[in-house]
Amino acid sequence: MQLTNKAEGTFAIAPTPFDPEGGIDVKSVDSMCDFYTEVGCSGITVLGIMGEAPKLDADEAIAVASQVIKRADKLQVVVGVSAPGFAAMRSLARKAMDAGAAGVMIAPIPSLRTDDQIVTYFKQAIEAIGSDIPWVLQDYPLTLSVQMTPGVIRRIIQDLPSCVMLKHEDWPGLEKISTLRGFEKDGSMRPISILTGNGGLFLDFEMERGADGAMTGYAFPDMLVDVVRLSKEGRREDAHDLFDAHLPLARYEQQQGVGLAVRKYVMAKRGIIAHDAQRKPGSSLSAAGRAEVDYLLARLAIKDKRAAV
Amino acid sequence: MQLTNKAEGTFAIAPTPFDPEGGIDVKSVDSMCDFYTEVGCSGITVLGIMGEAPKLDADEAIAVASQVIKRADKLQVVVGVSAPGFAAMRSLARKAMDAGAAGVMIAPIPSLRTDDQIVTYFKQAIEAIGSDIPWVLQDYPLTLSVQMTPGVIRRIIQDLPSCVMLKHEDWPGLEKISTLRGFEKDGSMRPISILTGNGGLFLDFEMERGADGAMTGYAFPDMLVDVVRLSKEGRREDAHDLFDAHLPLARYEQQQGVGLAVRKYVMAKRGIIAHDAQRKPGSSLSAAGRAEVDYLLARLAIKDKRAAV
Amino acid sequence: MQLTNKAEGTFAIAPTPFDPEGGIDVKSVDSMCDFYTEVGCSGITVLGIMGEAPKLDADEAIAVASQVIKRADKLQVVVGVSAPGFAAMRSLARKAMDAGAAGVMIAPIPSLRTDDQIVTYFKQAIEAIGSDIPWVLQDYPLTLSVQMTPGVIRRIIQDLPSCVMLKHEDWPGLEKISTLRGFEKDGSMRPISILTGNGGLFLDFEMERGADGAMTGYAFPDMLVDVVRLSKEGRREDAHDLFDAHLPLARYEQQQGVGLAVRKYVMAKRGIIAHDAQRKPGSSLSAAGRAEVDYLLARLAIKDKRAAV
Amino acid sequence: MQLTNKAEGTFAIAPTPFDPEGGIDVKSVDSMCDFYTEVGCSGITVLGIMGEAPKLDADEAIAVASQVIKRADKLQVVVGVSAPGFAAMRSLARKAMDAGAAGVMIAPIPSLRTDDQIVTYFKQAIEAIGSDIPWVLQDYPLTLSVQMTPGVIRRIIQDLPSCVMLKHEDWPGLEKISTLRGFEKDGSMRPISILTGNGGLFLDFEMERGADGAMTGYAFPDMLVDVVRLSKEGRREDAHDLFDAHLPLARYEQQQGVGLAVRKYVMAKRGIIAHDAQRKPGSSLSAAGRAEVDYLLARLAIKDKRAAV
Repeated sequence: MQLTNKAEGTFAIAPTPFDPEGGIDVKSVDSMCDFYTEVGCSGITVLGIMGEAPKLDADEAIAVASQVIKRADKLQVVVGVSAPGFAAMRSLARKAMDAGAAGVMIAPIPSLRTDDQIVTYFKQAIEAIGSDIPWVLQDYPLTLSVQMTPGVIRRIIQDLPSCVMLKHEDWPGLEKISTLRGFEKDGSMRPISILTGNGGLFLDFEMERGADGAMTGYAFPDMLVDVVRLSKEGRREDAHDLFDAHLPLARYEQQQGVGLAVRKYVMAKRGIIAHDAQRKPGSSLSAAGRAEVDYLLARLAIKDKRAAV
Repeated sequence: MQLTNKAEGTFAIAPTPFDPEGGIDVKSVDSMCDFYTEVGCSGITVLGIMGEAPKLDADEAIAVASQVIKRADKLQVVVGVSAPGFAAMRSLARKAMDAGAAGVMIAPIPSLRTDDQIVTYFKQAIEAIGSDIPWVLQDYPLTLSVQMTPGVIRRIIQDLPSCVMLKHEDWPGLEKISTLRGFEKDGSMRPISILTGNGGLFLDFEMERGADGAMTGYAFPDMLVDVVRLSKEGRREDAHDLFDAHLPLARYEQQQGVGLAVRKYVMAKRGIIAHDAQRKPGSSLSAAGRAEVDYLLARLAIKDKRAAV
Repeated sequence: MQLTNKAEGTFAIAPTPFDPEGGIDVKSVDSMCDFYTEVGCSGITVLGIMGEAPKLDADEAIAVASQVIKRADKLQVVVGVSAPGFAAMRSLARKAMDAGAAGVMIAPIPSLRTDDQIVTYFKQAIEAIGSDIPWVLQDYPLTLSVQMTPGVIRRIIQDLPSCVMLKHEDWPGLEKISTLRGFEKDGSMRPISILTGNGGLFLDFEMERGADGAMTGYAFPDMLVDVVRLSKEGRREDAHDLFDAHLPLARYEQQQGVGLAVRKYVMAKRGIIAHDAQRKPGSSLSAAGRAEVDYLLARLAIKDKRAAV
Repeated sequence: MQLTNKAEGTFAIAPTPFDPEGGIDVKSVDSMCDFYTEVGCSGITVLGIMGEAPKLDADEAIAVASQVIKRADKLQVVVGVSAPGFAAMRSLARKAMDAGAAGVMIAPIPSLRTDDQIVTYFKQAIEAIGSDIPWVLQDYPLTLSVQMTPGVIRRIIQDLPSCVMLKHEDWPGLEKISTLRGFEKDGSMRPISILTGNGGLFLDFEMERGADGAMTGYAFPDMLVDVVRLSKEGRREDAHDLFDAHLPLARYEQQQGVGLAVRKYVMAKRGIIAHDAQRKPGSSLSAAGRAEVDYLLARLAIKDKRAAV
């Protein structure tokens, strides 16, 4: 059940549930996994940027990953292994795969600038973790400040056969999907899976441009699952209607910094996790912010009953 | 009719209309001004980041500003004078005011980092242009990579009496509005006008947090005018209904790089300007992109007839 | 007397002399030009980063350039035309060439990241200013934060025949010179002139790696002229002895921010310009700083009499 | 023997010795420690930026630190604990102190911008590691891209009593030392130890401005020890003579990227470590580069016999 370039559907970017004292809330890890499984996710991604991974020490990180892998045994689990050095990256990647992960995800370090620096970085990373581990290339310029052209992504994919998926998170990125699918058609790049991020804010059109699904972290992964499915079934209006109904809230959740607080607040309200706590240093939602989210949920519930919480 | 800290309503960030050969389309400058006036804008901002200002030479820049000031004589016109050096900033600011501008807008240069550097920069800028010109402080970290805390904004406003308005474009920025309004209430900062940017993507809640209006560049400034008005009248549901109907398109237009192409494409479709041309080097909309915008307009037209173009 | 790829020797990066009130000190412009001519410089570069160019308005900029061109009529004058937009760049470049400049110098804008973005930027710049103007490519990552690999520089040089010179200012950059000269040898790049910057801090070895000379701004351009000449004559020990004697002061002058204050202070002491004034906003040398420079000059004067001022 | 604000002298920034296969060269760790002790260093700093720390996994990192602490038992050992997250930082800091470290060193993460963000970061870091660990504040804007004003440094020092030392590595930074010492004199900041970095390139004047010594990584720490001592003894000319003799090589070693290769090459030549190997991905010195270093050593040996290797 290792990750391949045929992967599709919705991979939920999982937050790490904490209790109010800052400990890992293992019960919520289980309930969250059960929820993702029930609503039809294809996979779960743990220890990503929104998973508060840097706040976990090495033992906690692998413990969380292992619990998710064990509990969500019907889903593919991708483990984020981005690290400032290759020794730590290798260590976490090997442990994750030993624990049963489907693959790992690697983001470039922020200091990379030139095309050659970027390509070289991923070659060295794969040399470090081993070429036997399927991995996801994370392209997220807004946060990582590394800009990869389609041509650079193609070089990485052609040079490194163990890369099976692109987590597409450029912004804007619709043309990038079209260009990469064009590379596949003209034979200059082997086919890969493309799942899209950015909180799902462009999922409606990303699917129409050729994405295979979503890998992102909205508090309603069930909406993502539905939009991906409706889009694949060719039910364009239905996909857009559902998407548009959620857009006001999805936009609100996509605010940098406070976004994770919104997500955990809604997930706790929905009963997916027990607490909306973040381990320190964390962002928090003001009273005004909570009232705004409640208002958005109430408006959403008119069109999507799942928001009536 | 100089700008004061009582300014409110919608200030349209005006694009610069070009003809397909790259010349300034002076006829469209007039029709655009007429449109902004008719739909109820309070002001127009020219030579901003989205106005392709760096592609104009010094003579063209002042010519465009002067034409807008003359034609839109019922509106307040703000002229962007951000420049890498103070000599050019002073020169444009004085000329703009002589031509009848209501005020000028100044953004920080990207290299500023520390609080003191930021405050010092604006002191030097005002020393250069003169303390008699009302000016707008532009706070736009996403594009300018300069981060001003509420405390730094307060220092600037307290130190420089000619600052009358904040163009609020932090992202996320709802708490920033609340904090600044709190400074006014506790007496630590004099009252200023706050108009919000970011393509209007958070205008619904920005108004509720205390903004005086919008200063941004969506292709439907009439929607911005309406949302600002509805919000001030306390018609919350109506404001959100109209806002939500536009959000899918507003979100699409807010894509960096390609956003201006979308805006001009829609404005040309609406007959506000004659061409969607950008002076080189410009972004352009692919066939797929145009089809997506058309689709969004068709969906929007169901709820807002003004989109039936 | 237009710039070609045969250019060599020392091109002095000229500061702009101001009087204490902030006006351009035209008398010092002349005396400075005379000095550069007398000590054997091959050229002068005006309106560069260290020339306080952004503090000049458009009319002043061309006036300074024209005066230097006229006075230093035995030297080649390169005019810096870097600008945030192509309209201003074209305007200044055409005026400079009309006034008799030998060529222009263009730096990339700081926002460029990918290889393609960089190459495209220079193509657009040359399309804007015209392909008939010989120009210098400025490679200065430390200040401009744009990283050009040797491969990218080669693409620019091969695509744009009017590029005749590289102002080499990468840091470290010795291997870059060797790589570029290697490209010339293997026939993959046409020959260009390479002059080096960075305040001359590596001039000793840059010459040995194949540089044609220096284009930088040390307060002793006569030392640069001598080191370039000694190195070309194969007098290695003499070149290094002279260079090493100046290194403590050259290092001191190379401090970012305060460096220009040091340079003008020493140039004024040497009688090259009348005042060490900078136009606001400028850096200044503290009393401790001036004493340190005086001490360094006194130590240097033991080995090089020209420092006895 | 914990670190206090009375610390002075030279703390050597230690590289991590590797064998050609990439394993840690434990024998060289010992010989290096012995060398630092013999030449009169006051302390050793391990796991810093130039110590290839990110290439070590967690177990290796603490093993290297422990070996240095044990072997160099007459010196104070500072352990770099900078990390992307506080969990890893705490874990390493506690282990290092348990192993006998004198203190730890913390650098800000590169994303910090505003004064408040910087101060808050260090408060959270100390909350994480515990306020009982003496620590060194690393101020290194050139590499870390975080700019701390003297005022921000003062806030950190006043708020966090366990901060006992500033590793001063701003560039330029002479005025910063003077300003901070001024804060101490006017009573607005408690006294701290200031050791300077930047490869020692300004050590001559840094001592005269009030630094307590050097914490940096030149291949001749014995020179640093001597310059610090001579300067404290008031032998100004002798200090500068020795410093100036080394400056051509020190400047060469200070090149970013290739600097560590130069340092290890010279240290291996001097017999301080057995190999100049770096763990992958590492920089390397070309044949031309090695010849240049050899030439610089030969020239230096005329004035300082220790360079005759």
